[in-house]
Parts: sequence; C-alpha cells; structure tokens
Amino acid sequence: MKAEIITIGDEILIGQIVDTNSAWIAKEFNLAGIEIYQITSVHDDHYHILEAMSNAEKNADLVIITGGLGPTKDDITKKVICEYFNTKLIFHQPTLDAIIERFKLRNVDMNQLNKDQALLPETCTILPNKVGTAPGMWFEKNDTIFVSIPGVPFEMQYLISEQILPRLRETGLTKAIYHRTVLTQGVPESMLAEKLEDWENRLPDNVKLAYLPNPMAVRLRLSALGNDTQVLKSLVEKEIEKLKLIIPKYIFGYDDDNLASVIGRYLVERNESLAITESCTGGYISHLITSVPGCSEYYKGSVTAYSNEVKQNILGVKKESLNNFGAVSKEVAEEMVVAVKNLFDTDYAVATTGIAGPDGGTEEKPVGTVWIAIAGKDKVYSYKYTFVGDKRERNIIRSSQTSLQLLRRLILQEL
Amino acid sequence: MKAEIITIGDEILIGQIVDTNSAWIAKEFNLAGIEIYQITSVHDDHYHILEAMSNAEKNADLVIITGGLGPTKDDITKKVICEYFNTKLIFHQPTLDAIIERFKLRNVDMNQLNKDQALLPETCTILPNKVGTAPGMWFEKNDTIFVSIPGVPFEMQYLISEQILPRLRETGLTKAIYHRTVLTQGVPESMLAEKLEDWENRLPDNVKLAYLPNPMAVRLRLSALGNDTQVLKSLVEKEIEKLKLIIPKYIFGYDDDNLASVIGRYLVERNESLAITESCTGGYISHLITSVPGCSEYYKGSVTAYSNEVKQNILGVKKESLNNFGAVSKEVAEEMVVAVKNLFDTDYAVATTGIAGPDGGTEEKPVGTVWIAIAGKDKVYSYKYTFVGDKRERNIIRSSQTSLQLLRRLILQEL
Repeated sequence: MKAEIITIGDEILIGQIVDTNSAWIAKEFNLAGIEIYQITSVHDDHYHILEAMSNAEKNADLVIITGGLGPTKDDITKKVICEYFNTKLIFHQPTLDAIIERFKLRNVDMNQLNKDQALLPETCTILPNKVGTAPGMWFEKNDTIFVSIPGVPFEMQYLISEQILPRLRETGLTKAIYHRTVLTQGVPESMLAEKLEDWENRLPDNVKLAYLPNPMAVRLRLSALGNDTQVLKSLVEKEIEKLKLIIPKYIFGYDDDNLASVIGRYLVERNESLAITESCTGGYISHLITSVPGCSEYYKGSVTAYSNEVKQNILGVKKESLNNFGAVSKEVAEEMVVAVKNLFDTDYAVATTGIAGPDGGTEEKPVGTVWIAIAGKDKVYSYKYTFVGDKRERNIIRSSQTSLQLLRRLILQEL
Repeated sequence: MKAEIITIGDEILIGQIVDTNSAWIAKEFNLAGIEIYQITSVHDDHYHILEAMSNAEKNADLVIITGGLGPTKDDITKKVICEYFNTKLIFHQPTLDAIIERFKLRNVDMNQLNKDQALLPETCTILPNKVGTAPGMWFEKNDTIFVSIPGVPFEMQYLISEQILPRLRETGLTKAIYHRTVLTQGVPESMLAEKLEDWENRLPDNVKLAYLPNPMAVRLRLSALGNDTQVLKSLVEKEIEKLKLIIPKYIFGYDDDNLASVIGRYLVERNESLAITESCTGGYISHLITSVPGCSEYYKGSVTAYSNEVKQNILGVKKESLNNFGAVSKEVAEEMVVAVKNLFDTDYAVATTGIAGPDGGTEEKPVGTVWIAIAGKDKVYSYKYTFVGDKRERNIIRSSQTSLQLLRRLILQEL
C-alpha cells in the first residue's frame, strides 16, 4: 500500500515550525508495512490544496491530510474537501455532543467557533477524536482512501493510532516491510563504504542499504520489502551478523538506540553509577541521560556549575586554578570531575567546561573550545576539543555527544 | 519569486529523520522575500525524482533540491539531474583540487568515492562548497532556476547563505515579505479568536493573520506581502500596536522569543539572579535557560537531584519529608527550592519533582504528576500539576515550560 502525506499550513512553508508530524506518521506507517511515497507541504490555499489532492490521487492508495482543522479562520480545509468530494457541510450531532461534553468537563465556556467544529462533510465517515474537538474525516474515491485529521500532534497521533491504523489493517492491503538500523561511530562515511563494498554488492535483491550520516555517527539502514515479515526479518538479521564480523568495533547500537541509552544499558549490567557536572553544556548532558526511561537505576544527578562561584563553592574547584588557568582549562575540568564523583559517590563522572558562544571567545580560547574530563574507578582522563563555528546550540550538542562517546569508551575500557 | 523545495531521501519518508532542512531554508528564503510554494519529499528513486522536478517546474521560479549527494551508493541524484537537463557527468578539476586539499588538511586518506564527488554535470554552474566535498549545482531551464545541494545541514546552510542567496539577490526578482509573530499565553485559541474578531476583520487586505497553537502558547503570525519592506513593516507594526491594547496581559514575547529568553531579559534589566534544581525534568530547564546567549549574566547554575541521596546530601532535604510525603510532594519541592536558592545565593529559584514515566506511577501519584516550587525574594510558591499521558519526553517538556511560565509570572509579580 502506497501512501502520501499532505500537510496544510503556511507555518511549515515559512519555516516557523518543523514538520515533525510527517516524520511521526511515516514511522508508524512503515512499522505497519505502509510505504510513504511522498510528503507534500502546501499553503492554506484553495487551489493549491485541490491540486495536491489530485496529484496524490494519481500515485497513492492512501492520502493522509493533516492540518487546517482548528477553530480559527485560517482554516479552509473543510470547504476545499467538500468541493473535492462534491459534498456539503452538515451538523454532526454526535460530534457536537462530544464537544459540549468536553467543554463541560474542563469547565470552559464554548463559543460559535467551537460549535462549528461539528460542521462536517455529509458523505464522509467520521473518526471520533477523543483527545480534541476536531474529528477525523475518512473518504473513499475511486481506489484511493483520503483521511483528513487535525495537525495538533497529540490529536493527530491519537487518530492515526486508534482510528486510522486499525481500519487500514482491516483492509488487508498493507505490505510487509522490515527495517533495521545499525549505528556506527569513529569511521567516516566514505571509509565505511569502502570496507562494506563487497558485502553490499552481495546483498539480496530485496534488501536495500542506505547510509544516514549525522555529525556524530553514521547510521546504516537495511530495509527489506516483501510479503512475510518473518522471512524479511531473518534475511536482514543474517546480513547484520555478517556486518558485525566486518566492522565489530565501530558498531555501538541499533535502531532507536542512542549513546545515552547504550550507556544506560552498560551501567545497569555492571551495576555502576554516574554523576555529571556541566558548565558550557548547561544541563544538556543530564537531559540526554534522563531522557532514557529507568535511568534512576544508575544516574544520581548533576551540578550545573555555570558560574565560577558555583564551581568554587559547591564543587570546591580551587580559586588558584580558576585564576591561573581560567575556567576553560584542563585543571578546572579535572577538579570538577573529581569533585562531582566524590560528592555524589559514583563509579563514573563527566565534566565539561568550554565556550559555547556566540560571544566570549579569545584568540587563545576561541568559541567552540571545550575541555571534557571523564573519571572512572581510578583514573581521570581529559581532552581538549575545538569545535568550529559560533553556533551556540551546535557547540552544546557536539560537546555533549562527545562527552557521552568518551564515557561509553571508558566504561568499555577502550580509553 | 515562488520557490519549491524538493528533499530526496528515503530516511525522511520512513520517518527516520525529521526534515529540519526545509524549515531552515523556508525561514531564510522568507526573510529574503522569496515565497515557498511547496515542500516535497521524495524517494531515492529515478522516476520519482524526475516527476517531482517536472511538477515543480510548472509552478515555481526556483527549485531547491537537497539530499542525495553523499559519497555512497544510495545517491542517484546526479544521474537523474543529468537526464533532466540532457547533459553528462565530467570531471571538474577545481572541485577535485578542493577535495584533495580538504583531505590533506584533515590528514585522512581519500578513496575513489571521494574523488567521484568531482564528477559533475557538464552544463551547470558549480557552487563551491567550502565546508564539505559535494558542491552545489545551478541550472536554468526555461524560466526556472534549479539548484541541487547536499543534505548535510551545515553544508546546505553554507551553500544557501553564501552561494545561492547572493546570486538570487542579483536577479532582482525577489518580492518583499514582512512577518511578525506575537506570542501569547494563558488563553485558548478559540477564546483568543473571539476577542480578536473585530480587529482581524479590519486588517488591511495584504496583511494575513494565522493562529499557530502549540501545547504551551498560541502564536499569532501577521504576514504582509508587497513591494516595499518599510511600508509593509509599518503596516504590520501598526496592527500590533492595536493588538497590544486588546490583549495586553496575554502577550509575552515576539518572533524568536521564548520563555527562557524573555526571562533572561527581565533578569538582566533587574540585575537579578537565578538557580534551579531539577528532579523529574533532569536538566532540561537548565538546558533551556543556558540556550540563551549571555545567560551567565544572571544564571548561576543548578543541581539535578535525581536520586533521594542527592536531594538529602547536597540540598539537605529532610529524610522525614522524603519518608512521610515521598519525593514527589509539596514539602520536598519546597525544601528543594529553598535549599538551592540559599546554596547558590540567588534572587529566584525553581524546583521540580515528579514522575516523568513511562513507569513509576501509582494510583495516588500517576505518571505525569509533578510538583513545581518557585522561590522569590521572600516567598515560596508551589503548585501540583497532573499532565495526562505517559510520554516521558512530553512530560519533561511540559513540566519545564510550566516552570518557566511560573517563574516569568513571579518576576513580573503576577503570581
């Protein structure tokens, strides 16, 4: 089954919001064996929406339209949809009842705009929205299914998971897809491609390899399309076993793994604990670690020592070290990491101190300079990095990811 | 000038990555007065790329193609482009020289895949890529400009900012657009719409209003299209002055403001300081605060007290409070906030303690329960929230944003 996603709304086209809805839908559909053929973002514009729907109908068996269904005036979607399916808006009593009930529960007054959300196309199947006021609309035209749903993420997610996917499964038209992603680190894309060339050339015809590089890792995605998930799975897993033999030391995880979740797994297995102290990364490493469910098993906490005062008073960094070497120095990073490890009584600790930018750099220590110190059972390691560029956000992310890389290698005794 | 963005790559269509590139390009183009007509994401597929290019040519004066230009095999873009423009690949010596130089500088061996990046279509204008190995390609066909660039974000950003926008400005075809976004809080979309109805109906014809709701705020975007930026600006600003009189207490910022940057501005103006202690939010509030450039003027730091041990030993939370009321309680939140305010010697402090999920909830304290305490000069305020849903990430974000909302209101003496 081939699907297209159409998102409606100027806010995506002027770059005010990032289209995370489409990524979410694509992921869910893939897991259900529905291939996304195209994602199209269009304006809140009558003609443009019609054109996108008609183009989608040519290629797709299923068209998911998100956005354009709020209570306010910029929403013309319902009118355009009526035109496309040659129908008209009528009051849908069960939807109106649900809206009234919803406002009563929340003890909020409702107005005409809220009531008008129960105005719905006469010929569609209404998909009840239990988490919001705008329901989904399901149409069938020739051989294509069209579904229109609101763009508010949790409402969209509810309608996809609880209303649309169950209905699609009933059609029996979905095909089997199996994906697996191998996460590698410490080897550039082109070198990896060279090492994997023979293996890649011998992949079965229905198994596809894609390289997905990002600043911190190269991900290898294997996808297989066919009829039987179990067959596809064993095909892909066999190839991954071969891959493991070719590049054993570069692989650090699979699929939705990330450095923080992999580190978490290692610490649980070893029954060991972690503390962090951050200056330039400002809490981001702690956030990455605590984004992993169950992290309270190994994570005790952190000190964000943003001011020198806190470095001295809470962590006990020596005044002389700050004066003689500066806050961004090997000496201060090492004192920080030892202090937090002792204070929190953990097996491992990580410390960062650097200049995230955009200001605050000097000739000797430009923006992007960061010292990372890592403490293990009986040794402290420290490294200086100079990330290029004055983008604050990017320097924070790179410093944090590099810290986690070092921590992972320390836990595996690879430092 | 109307533009379409085409992104190439299966990774977007299977939901493995979110298309942040298009949002970035859209934003930059809008600031330059180029209207994005459509964003289309297509597969790494020969026929599909050709179809997307041909559809785009019908509507757009400018087509930006991103992705599909890495050194590895899944990249078929260059071949398809040659077919579309009826040309062939030849070695481009300056590009090859630049690649060789790049590898020499980084002291990395290069291989055939790297060299092949200098194979480029004969008829295009090459846009040098100073931050990567794949250059941009600029074509003109009938009245449409096509530019193909790599999908790696910082390479794409370099090519747009340094190569493509300067060339487009030279054409003189760009139109003026002026956008302003007003950030509101504490009023639902439908109620806001009612309050603003009269004002909206009287907006000038070329000024458009859009409501952009998200879980924490409703943003109102005013856009004006015309020929003279200064005229458009004064048109929009005049409307914003009227808006301020209608909803004075709901507006908390403009454009790229966010709660953390607004709070930062208030603290600088007042010469006051802030400390944070986090349990369930795990460092995310500290990350939001430190994402604002210049935050060292008012932010001293934080303690992530993830374990009870840290709550007791570092913050001095009483053992009896933890035993009698539990870590997620009014008493513990208030002890935490007072402790961190004293420890870091600040004017304000924020504390969170809650159950982010997906596990760890009880009947009495389900997942999503969070206590937030805020300390000002001489008073401590604490509030209990019960966010619905077991999504860890969402609970962390909501708890953090709510904490910042409360802090903002405390600073403004509105609590």
